[in-house]
Amino acid sequence: MPYVNIKVTREGGPDGTGPTPAEKTQLIKGVTDLLQNVLNKSPATTFVVIDEVSLDDWGISGRSARDIRATES
Amino acid sequence: MPYVNIKVTREGGPDGTGPTPAEKTQLIKGVTDLLQNVLNKSPATTFVVIDEVSLDDWGISGRSARDIRATES
Amino acid sequence: MPYVNIKVTREGGPDGTGPTPAEKTQLIKGVTDLLQNVLNKSPATTFVVIDEVSLDDWGISGRSARDIRATES
Amino acid sequence: MPYVNIKVTREGGPDGTGPTPAEKTQLIKGVTDLLQNVLNKSPATTFVVIDEVSLDDWGISGRSARDIRATES
Amino acid sequence: MPYVNIKVTREGGPDGTGPTPAEKTQLIKGVTDLLQNVLNKSPATTFVVIDEVSLDDWGISGRSARDIRATES
Amino acid sequence: MPYVNIKVTREGGPDGTGPTPAEKTQLIKGVTDLLQNVLNKSPATTFVVIDEVSLDDWGISGRSARDIRATES
Repeated sequence: MPYVNIKVTREGGPDGTGPTPAEKTQLIKGVTDLLQNVLNKSPATTFVVIDEVSLDDWGISGRSARDIRATES
Repeated sequence: MPYVNIKVTREGGPDGTGPTPAEKTQLIKGVTDLLQNVLNKSPATTFVVIDEVSLDDWGISGRSARDIRATES
Repeated sequence: MPYVNIKVTREGGPDGTGPTPAEKTQLIKGVTDLLQNVLNKSPATTFVVIDEVSLDDWGISGRSARDIRATES
Repeated sequence: MPYVNIKVTREGGPDGTGPTPAEKTQLIKGVTDLLQNVLNKSPATTFVVIDEVSLDDWGISGRSARDIRATES
Repeated sequence: MPYVNIKVTREGGPDGTGPTPAEKTQLIKGVTDLLQNVLNKSPATTFVVIDEVSLDDWGISGRSARDIRATES
Repeated sequence: MPYVNIKVTREGGPDGTGPTPAEKTQLIKGVTDLLQNVLNKSPATTFVVIDEVSLDDWGISGRSARDIRATES
């Protein structure tokens, strides 16, 4: 009965506003299959929660992802 | 000094958009009372954080809750 | 299909090393009932995860719980 | 390679709707520096995620922060 | 720069005490590949944290996993 | 009333088994001060929880930290 939380930045996808429902379904299906294949966990009791995080709210290297993306452009 | 995080899908409630503030207050009050009754924890230092999760972002059985709800209808 | 995480300090209980299995079961049962009563959530898909946190690893008021407990004694 | 999650209520800031991007950057920079100074952790692999939580979704003392703020006013 | 947290019960594996390091590496590799394949996320900034949870600390259907496993035996 | 969770690998410190209680206190004090200075949050209602994560349970670049550390040596 695993619980998986996936946090990604809200960016990319067809209109730049984050993963599409179809992409999220691929993540849910993929990680559920992984847990079944590696640890024999039942999909029926595998929970997955996806969080999209604003670029202002994600930090790495002491900078926000917003600032990092602006520098990359 | 407990910390409790409650994640629920954003559905139900009077207009289908998730729990009302009054329902959330019942959850906050109920779990705070529970921790006081069972473990003698002080309400003054019991934190509760509620997260509503979009049906696209919640997975079970390798499917999104959105897809599961659509099949049920 | 709610997910609940309860974090408590590892203290109290019959030998001072934290909640007993019976107390944890009361927390699991209590919060599952609460979600069923308030939001009509099914117990079959309500997950609860309890974390016991060492007094050295819990901070409030800028001090560790270990330090706070020592001052109280 | 630390991971830090900071949850704050969505209030305050110049228009009352929560911390500004500049304030969030100060949090990201500050906690990344702290981990480098205390534990010699590399900023390049220090992740910070900030969550703003609605006043309805935050509880303390068995009440929502919304209710507490209303009483204070 | 995704962050993934995987929580599983501490059971199974060769001696019944939970997943082996090799199985954990499969989970880490598998979910990192998944995020690269679906969302084009860089493995270099994909963090994975695995938590093993005691059977006493995991609840479903209002019961602990310890109690559920005992009933199944 | 902020809540902060800091996850670090269980390594370093005087005997290689992770941060000392004194170092943890510095983290607790430092991040509590930071939230007071940047957002005017009260230390009395600032919670900090530190998690030490085994090197087998932390992944980056699709590898466990255990494997990465072994390669570095």
